[in-house]
Amino acid sequence: MKLASLKSGRDGQLVVVSDDLTRMVTAGDIAPTMQCALDNWTAVRGDLEKLHERLQNGEIQGVAFDQAQCASPLPRAYHWADGSAYVNHVELVRKARGAEVPESFYSDPLMYQGGSDTFLAPREPVKMPQSNGFGIDFEAEIAVVTDDVPMGVSAEDALPHIQLVMLVNDVSLRGLIPAELAKGFGFYQSKPSSAFSPVCVTPEQLGDRWSEGKLHLPLISQLNGEKFGEPNAGQDMTFHFGQLVAHAARTRSLCAGTIIGSGTVSNKLDGGPGKPVVEGGVGYSCIAEIRMIETIQNGSASTPFMDFGNTIAIEMLDDQGQSIFGRIEQTVEQV
Amino acid sequence: MKLASLKSGRDGQLVVVSDDLTRMVTAGDIAPTMQCALDNWTAVRGDLEKLHERLQNGEIQGVAFDQAQCASPLPRAYHWADGSAYVNHVELVRKARGAEVPESFYSDPLMYQGGSDTFLAPREPVKMPQSNGFGIDFEAEIAVVTDDVPMGVSAEDALPHIQLVMLVNDVSLRGLIPAELAKGFGFYQSKPSSAFSPVCVTPEQLGDRWSEGKLHLPLISQLNGEKFGEPNAGQDMTFHFGQLVAHAARTRSLCAGTIIGSGTVSNKLDGGPGKPVVEGGVGYSCIAEIRMIETIQNGSASTPFMDFGNTIAIEMLDDQGQSIFGRIEQTVEQV
Repeated sequence: MKLASLKSGRDGQLVVVSDDLTRMVTAGDIAPTMQCALDNWTAVRGDLEKLHERLQNGEIQGVAFDQAQCASPLPRAYHWADGSAYVNHVELVRKARGAEVPESFYSDPLMYQGGSDTFLAPREPVKMPQSNGFGIDFEAEIAVVTDDVPMGVSAEDALPHIQLVMLVNDVSLRGLIPAELAKGFGFYQSKPSSAFSPVCVTPEQLGDRWSEGKLHLPLISQLNGEKFGEPNAGQDMTFHFGQLVAHAARTRSLCAGTIIGSGTVSNKLDGGPGKPVVEGGVGYSCIAEIRMIETIQNGSASTPFMDFGNTIAIEMLDDQGQSIFGRIEQTVEQV
Repeated sequence: MKLASLKSGRDGQLVVVSDDLTRMVTAGDIAPTMQCALDNWTAVRGDLEKLHERLQNGEIQGVAFDQAQCASPLPRAYHWADGSAYVNHVELVRKARGAEVPESFYSDPLMYQGGSDTFLAPREPVKMPQSNGFGIDFEAEIAVVTDDVPMGVSAEDALPHIQLVMLVNDVSLRGLIPAELAKGFGFYQSKPSSAFSPVCVTPEQLGDRWSEGKLHLPLISQLNGEKFGEPNAGQDMTFHFGQLVAHAARTRSLCAGTIIGSGTVSNKLDGGPGKPVVEGGVGYSCIAEIRMIETIQNGSASTPFMDFGNTIAIEMLDDQGQSIFGRIEQTVEQV
């Protein structure tokens, strides 16, 4: 099943979307909003599935689906926590500044809580007061949405709580991170509003590409129209989504509609850092990563962060080349 | 005006409460929930004020108000960020481990984002899987609720965006903090679900005790039935709430219903740390603080953190000795 939220009020209007993303039908009779559906997931899921089936088999014609009319699937959420499950990314961050990766990073996930009250729409500009010094970067990631999760759930028992999967651009302000992390309280101003893919899908919709809490397909990022990365999200993921959800729920329960992110998708190559797409590699899911590799190799970074007018697109294709989640397309603009 | 949310479904039922906290009337005809009221604040505020006036002057009798039936004013919220505005508290933390306070801490607020999807009710137990090693602590604080705040708002312009004021117990797991902060991503598992006071009030309701973004009254904490602290929340607050809201909104807008906390209320005494209540001082708003002073004075802490069966009550009285926000009363229990 594929779901989306059309822009409407603060919480959007829930629609069921055809697998090829061309048609949709409102789900308003079942649940007016995505949050409302998740709040009552056990009761409404079956009806939503049936509606999707009728849209798929042509019993319902529906109307044209336009990704540009979408808000993020949850236009605002009660909980958005982002892991850093591809430890390769962390290894590069550390290596670039000459620091070791603590052993615990391979058993205890890194996770920060992000702002969830004002998500951007998937085609909405990233508006910032300045680009100079802010180090505006994208981060292409996978995210999952859970139902209610009890405190202390195990990683294995957490997996069936994952109800929806989507993509996210976790916008990061690299220029603000060092000073903010030095204060010891974690990211806050350095992580402005994120944007999610137009469409979210059930894990079942992903077939065998979803297995053991990982999504085994390349995540494609295009920076200013050029392919920048296509690492496989199922590879080099140190912690699967069940482990990330369990980490989030260790000392508190999670409310339906909690979003847990994977962190920047990052693949190794022959045990070391990957290569840029132009050199035949799978590239990167954020600018910081290529800059770290440049720093390690040349002593300094040459690829600039994003400036006003720059664009980022994030998408994932199925085995037939069909977009699964629709396409995040954002331009950086001055506020 | 005083407002509360009776326990009902996921988001509570909005009620208007009499100033003496004895009577209430449902606000369902105006807005079913607190979040709904805040989402439409400009449109509904006047009607809520009128209802409060009619309850106050006896035109509406209402029904008995029972704090024990209350959820937190926002049973779940889209954004809960907690500052650390009483730098005295930070000075003690640092002094206890022999570290200096960076100069920037007096101009750039510390703030972390907390879990907002599963707040505890004001009389709900703090349930934890273990007490040993977790270092279960309370933190008595003031919190404000905003309407929609634009990105980049100034501290002065942020003040009129503060619509409601309440108290909070920001439960902290001291035993998990060092390892978690060492990872660099800030608090997450070490900050489980918080509980807020039964009632929230408009700044106007506080009269001249609310001035320049600070609440000038003692915040009373009782640990296991004994007074533990009564520092004045208006004193030694390095950053007022306008500054905290502006900090939160520097790189993103804030959605209506955003909750910003003050951090642990902490007063100095003669330029140094305060004294315990039993020694005639104003005491402390968390156990960690007295432990830090014990560590500084005696080389080690003697006051234990909370164990199963321990209780914490947090309250603020007006000049007539009347409870303003009602009383947070929580027991620590094993899950």
